[in-house]
Amino acid sequence: MPKISVKSMKAKAKARPKSANGKGGPAALTSRRRKAIRFTPTRLKLLTPVPSDIEIAQAAKLKPVLQIAEEVGLKADELELFGKYKAKVHLEVRERLAKRPNGKYIDVTAITPTPLGEGKTTTTCGLSQALGAHLGKSVFTCIRQPSQGPTFGIKGGAAGGGYSQIIPMEDFNLHLTGDIHAITAANNLLAATIDARMLHERAQPDDDKLGKALTLDGQFTDSQRKRLAKLGLAANSLADLSTADKRRMFRLDIDPASITWQRVVDINDRLLRRIQIGLGDDEKGNERITGFDITVASEIMAILALTTSLPDMRERFSRIVIGTNTKGEPVTAEDLGVAGALTVLMKDAIMPNLMQTLEGTPAFVHAGPFANIAHGNSSIVADQIALKLVGPDGYVVTESGFGADCGMEKFMDIKCRYSGLIPNVVVIVATIRALKMHGGGPRVVAGRPLDKAYTEENLPLLETGAVNLAKHIENAKLFGVPVVVAVNSFKYDTEAEIRLVQKLAVEAGAEGAFKCTNWMRGGTGAIELAEAVVAAAEKSNHFQFLYPLDMSIKQKIETIATKIYGADGVDYLPEAEAKIELYTRLGFDTLPINMAKTHLSLTHDPNIKGRPTGWRLPIRDIRASVGAGFLYPLCGAMRTMPGLPTRPVFMDVDLDLKTGKVKGLF
Amino acid sequence: MPKISVKSMKAKAKARPKSANGKGGPAALTSRRRKAIRFTPTRLKLLTPVPSDIEIAQAAKLKPVLQIAEEVGLKADELELFGKYKAKVHLEVRERLAKRPNGKYIDVTAITPTPLGEGKTTTTCGLSQALGAHLGKSVFTCIRQPSQGPTFGIKGGAAGGGYSQIIPMEDFNLHLTGDIHAITAANNLLAATIDARMLHERAQPDDDKLGKALTLDGQFTDSQRKRLAKLGLAANSLADLSTADKRRMFRLDIDPASITWQRVVDINDRLLRRIQIGLGDDEKGNERITGFDITVASEIMAILALTTSLPDMRERFSRIVIGTNTKGEPVTAEDLGVAGALTVLMKDAIMPNLMQTLEGTPAFVHAGPFANIAHGNSSIVADQIALKLVGPDGYVVTESGFGADCGMEKFMDIKCRYSGLIPNVVVIVATIRALKMHGGGPRVVAGRPLDKAYTEENLPLLETGAVNLAKHIENAKLFGVPVVVAVNSFKYDTEAEIRLVQKLAVEAGAEGAFKCTNWMRGGTGAIELAEAVVAAAEKSNHFQFLYPLDMSIKQKIETIATKIYGADGVDYLPEAEAKIELYTRLGFDTLPINMAKTHLSLTHDPNIKGRPTGWRLPIRDIRASVGAGFLYPLCGAMRTMPGLPTRPVFMDVDLDLKTGKVKGLF
Repeated sequence: MPKISVKSMKAKAKARPKSANGKGGPAALTSRRRKAIRFTPTRLKLLTPVPSDIEIAQAAKLKPVLQIAEEVGLKADELELFGKYKAKVHLEVRERLAKRPNGKYIDVTAITPTPLGEGKTTTTCGLSQALGAHLGKSVFTCIRQPSQGPTFGIKGGAAGGGYSQIIPMEDFNLHLTGDIHAITAANNLLAATIDARMLHERAQPDDDKLGKALTLDGQFTDSQRKRLAKLGLAANSLADLSTADKRRMFRLDIDPASITWQRVVDINDRLLRRIQIGLGDDEKGNERITGFDITVASEIMAILALTTSLPDMRERFSRIVIGTNTKGEPVTAEDLGVAGALTVLMKDAIMPNLMQTLEGTPAFVHAGPFANIAHGNSSIVADQIALKLVGPDGYVVTESGFGADCGMEKFMDIKCRYSGLIPNVVVIVATIRALKMHGGGPRVVAGRPLDKAYTEENLPLLETGAVNLAKHIENAKLFGVPVVVAVNSFKYDTEAEIRLVQKLAVEAGAEGAFKCTNWMRGGTGAIELAEAVVAAAEKSNHFQFLYPLDMSIKQKIETIATKIYGADGVDYLPEAEAKIELYTRLGFDTLPINMAKTHLSLTHDPNIKGRPTGWRLPIRDIRASVGAGFLYPLCGAMRTMPGLPTRPVFMDVDLDLKTGKVKGLF
Repeated sequence: MPKISVKSMKAKAKARPKSANGKGGPAALTSRRRKAIRFTPTRLKLLTPVPSDIEIAQAAKLKPVLQIAEEVGLKADELELFGKYKAKVHLEVRERLAKRPNGKYIDVTAITPTPLGEGKTTTTCGLSQALGAHLGKSVFTCIRQPSQGPTFGIKGGAAGGGYSQIIPMEDFNLHLTGDIHAITAANNLLAATIDARMLHERAQPDDDKLGKALTLDGQFTDSQRKRLAKLGLAANSLADLSTADKRRMFRLDIDPASITWQRVVDINDRLLRRIQIGLGDDEKGNERITGFDITVASEIMAILALTTSLPDMRERFSRIVIGTNTKGEPVTAEDLGVAGALTVLMKDAIMPNLMQTLEGTPAFVHAGPFANIAHGNSSIVADQIALKLVGPDGYVVTESGFGADCGMEKFMDIKCRYSGLIPNVVVIVATIRALKMHGGGPRVVAGRPLDKAYTEENLPLLETGAVNLAKHIENAKLFGVPVVVAVNSFKYDTEAEIRLVQKLAVEAGAEGAFKCTNWMRGGTGAIELAEAVVAAAEKSNHFQFLYPLDMSIKQKIETIATKIYGADGVDYLPEAEAKIELYTRLGFDTLPINMAKTHLSLTHDPNIKGRPTGWRLPIRDIRASVGAGFLYPLCGAMRTMPGLPTRPVFMDVDLDLKTGKVKGLF
């Protein structure tokens, strides 16, 4: 049976982690060197009360992106401008700066959040602003591009908040430079190809005629030559193949029930979750039940986030498994002859997008994979370029989706494994509100006023809930990385509450915990946090992965479940057992594991808060993103297509026709 | 019953046409004036045999788009760069140059084509290259952006061909600056909104609760205030409305069977032609049969092509009718509260995209509506800006889709009506091959070798078929515009054949007919054509529309059918009769008519060639694009979603990983 080659991917993923500063040892270089980034901070004009995000963003002074690029040391021919305030940056920058040591690598994550979110992106921006505009450090922010679905649906935008944002926020939240649209196009070209191929194979039962229709004057395409090689067929043209060979070569014989590749739109369109296609008169006999995901759930997005180069991306596309044939053998995008076209559609999207924070520090906004069925981290290539640009005295601040049990674990075990980079500091964002919820506070629901448990001092509730923070601190330290806690503060928080969190955080192993007011005051409000991050980054680094890739699938899952989530063990439903057997047989068992679990609890049940013990994790099923390079066990039903509420955000969105400005985004 | 206001649209459309040179009179200005565009032509290095389109395009010397912009007199702040070779141009240029008289306005169209196409875009580019690079004229090319569907499906790209192309051709044929992706996003946001609204109305039978869910603290959005005004309800907040008023206001009560708004993808995905949505467990009771069109068939695309400003685009979006309520009253995008968000999604797409031809003349590539269910012409705003930039001694060469009976008629009666511009010359592209087909030559099929009727001299066949050319010449002259014929020549054509076409064209009323070899030789091969166009543009202009808007729907259809197509009359099927009554009642009867007819015949039957007489045109149904501003009668089934062939173009497409160049596009 033909196996998908995951060898080169494994080799890359197995490579021994090297220090982010490229020296392999502790980052103890303290001599004064030229700062790689010399820049003019943008002065904030702080208003009280804090205006809306879009008002702050639209009042902000934007530097031309050419200035940002010059400040970070990019050359004009390394840029592709997209208007005056956005640019794509060529990957070749990495080669030009190959000899420059990397900067320090900071990952911002969070405790188990409330449904409101705890302000990771706001903290990420505020920390960067503090480092760059107030401590005079070279700094780069690397974050994800959001989906337009939530932007227009319930959640609103994702550019940070208050005086800690990426700007222009409209571009950030809307088309940006078209990367997500390119993913939609690529994903759907592959989807159309699958169904069209099945239709044409059904319409042409004659294998000789099928072979003729699939070749041009009997000549093979590059993809077809790869498939010939995979099947062990030696042939220079169609004439060299017997009818039986043609059958093997050209009749992919896709089992419709096996197809896992869905279509996508970057819109909350829940009516498309489950659909029947092929109901037209001309498509009779090709009806099939399938569905649409939101674009950011596409494996193409996960690939964009994890790829390291154009050739690597081409290879990952070729490996995408869309389902199996009727014999249970995987069918790939390369088998369908479409991997080259996918690469062409994505050749510009691979370049990270240069933007800026409100205080004029540089930012890359690039890739935004789902944080459950994918790994929820921004792109590797952006981090690689940024680490070179900031140089050995500089800092790259990136963010992982969801809580530390989800996004940070995947940052370490998947993203860092594929990039070869290792983090110097983990910043865990906590709020008094969320910790009280973990202590047993009433349910927190978007749009409803907060209970007084949250608006009045309550130290016992807070202390009980702080076990959640402690667990996340312990988890980060499992990877050998120092932890700093950022307490994203709200007006209700009392000084006693902040002090309690500080005490408990240090007891749990953090370097310290710091009150952050950067939402209200910009970088000024995160200076203490920034100073602590600088100090922590100088500590010697003992980074290690949680598990080696040569563990079995079950061992890997159980390691994550017991060590990170605190489960007693794992139970597998029959579908999951079958997949483990299948994927092991196909050689996918050496891929890293991407747990698809709720972020609202350390367990699989979003209602269980705090730091639960005495429970077992059920695995319902396991899927494979062979192109992206991970398996994703499903702990419960994962929604990959949100819906619109009765009154979606977009009802307030309009263009001010006098000023040309966008209204109503937040 | 609430009527959709089409008043302002009608007022605009009814405005007396003014001369494209802005003076209202014949263009008799012959004094030497400063040429608005001073540019350095790019020298072509012609190779024989002519290499593939992509080889020519990739070997071409590209001017930086900043140089193109400077040459045409654009200021830096009027540009939004998209990489080094593309830029969007702000509409405000029109105001800065308001006092400059317009240039001459040339529309390139064609005889009834073979399925291979007769080279309109190649001629459009060649004519521009001749005017600009060889005759030293100020010139601008304005053409459509193609869909990625055909690019990856059967047809290949649409950037022209041989030595007459728009470059970079990969960008032209792929994402360009994301306009089509913005249309996909906008179209699908509206589609998701329709289904989500029906779902939420079903889930909430209580009108008070529905009103509460649709307002924020009882306050109305701008859209809701517009709907209140339309319904004649006076209210400042929710509290001012009775339950019955709330029912009228908030329960749109959309009739699912009436919905004409489809979802779109810019991919040939025939399995999506007819689908059933809402099959998920959480969507029970909301199942519905619907379908996907290809993006360029979206009304949003037609609006982009016909709009004249951001406020006008906002208004057109608000007028989009997606279907009716159960009482048969139209439901609009404004009723759904989404017109503002659509405008925000499309605010950048409204700016035309600046590119260049192979000989370095400037080009706008902007909008690409379908040529059957829409009007098949590039954008009004691009033409308006280009006419200002070239100035009174310059030339803007644009192109209409399909044959002159389709695209040119719509150019005149729809596009020019909404723009207020009038054309100075029509160029009709003909090929000896297509004329022989009209004379009775064997079927021409893509991918199959041409019959010897086409590869050997055959004057009688040619003379018989030339009646098709004669009819198109007569049609263009019905609008009062001089006609020049371009004979796009192939290697098989003999001099005697060319001379015969020249003689017959002049007899039919053309200014002349000219052999064009620009595919093989660039602008040099279209110099005679260009000189004839220059001479024809100096003739006095008697432009008139084919019909006034206050004719009834039937009178308008019958005018087009009898005068342009040569039908004896029109027959209406019952569905069409019902729509005529409905649209007249709703006040849509004053919109111009956009016939949805095959381009492969002057009749509705693609198999009938030549200049058919003694036939009647059947109208199956009529649809309304109220936002775009036209009704479209269906003469037969119009396919709005193509399919992929067994061996699609994309199978040859890949990225050369060494050079980074795209392979296999054509």
